[in-house]
Amino acid sequence: MPSDAFGVTTRDNMPAKRTAAPDVRFRLRITVGDAIAIGPGKVDLLEAIHTVGSLTAAARSLGMSYRRAWLLVDTMNKCFSAPVVRTAAGGARGGGTLLTELGREVVERYRRAEAAAYATGKPHIDAILKLLR
Amino acid sequence: MPSDAFGVTTRDNMPAKRTAAPDVRFRLRITVGDAIAIGPGKVDLLEAIHTVGSLTAAARSLGMSYRRAWLLVDTMNKCFSAPVVRTAAGGARGGGTLLTELGREVVERYRRAEAAAYATGKPHIDAILKLLR
Repeated sequence: MPSDAFGVTTRDNMPAKRTAAPDVRFRLRITVGDAIAIGPGKVDLLEAIHTVGSLTAAARSLGMSYRRAWLLVDTMNKCFSAPVVRTAAGGARGGGTLLTELGREVVERYRRAEAAAYATGKPHIDAILKLLR
Repeated sequence: MPSDAFGVTTRDNMPAKRTAAPDVRFRLRITVGDAIAIGPGKVDLLEAIHTVGSLTAAARSLGMSYRRAWLLVDTMNKCFSAPVVRTAAGGARGGGTLLTELGREVVERYRRAEAAAYATGKPHIDAILKLLR
């Protein structure tokens, strides 16, 4: 799971089950104007970039087109005060893509917010789960 | 705001702003198989029913068709161990629709889970907001 790189695991990162067991998702999204600065898809992409060190490979690992991944990164770079990724030595095509310090902080804070949400929301979520058929 | 009926207010319930101020949403969704048992749209509908006492009026207040609202309620009724709404005295057309005890508990637990998420996630969310342009 990519999020392990940051030491925080949430249920969002668990593999989908094909059973009837209920699936609980707590999704955080921060929007600025019409742009989603960070949300589930973008944080997954940042984690994949962190793991594989390449935007192309990260997009592929998520079943996403390179163009789509590039647009998500571009939106994040415009929303945050500094870029979330940087090109590694070797140039735009040869050296891969790494998270910047800011990119890493966004991922870590996002996953910690999610983990906190699951932890403190758990009694209430469990109460709802008990009401399911 | 409909959620005030339950004494819990979250940012999800606040009116959308047309300014550049960041919007933070923490959305809880519980899925059973292919069906969403409860999520942002369904809990809004339950709150609207609680407030206006009618499925037709609740749908209208949310800009939703009666058919759509009925399908959301039907899905919830199938996912939970008992119905989330009941028809009030007066019959299916005359007497309106009320939440059952179970329906009220689902709404209250859902909003409390959300409120807990915002409260404990706040330091991390604030840290992300500080990184925005």
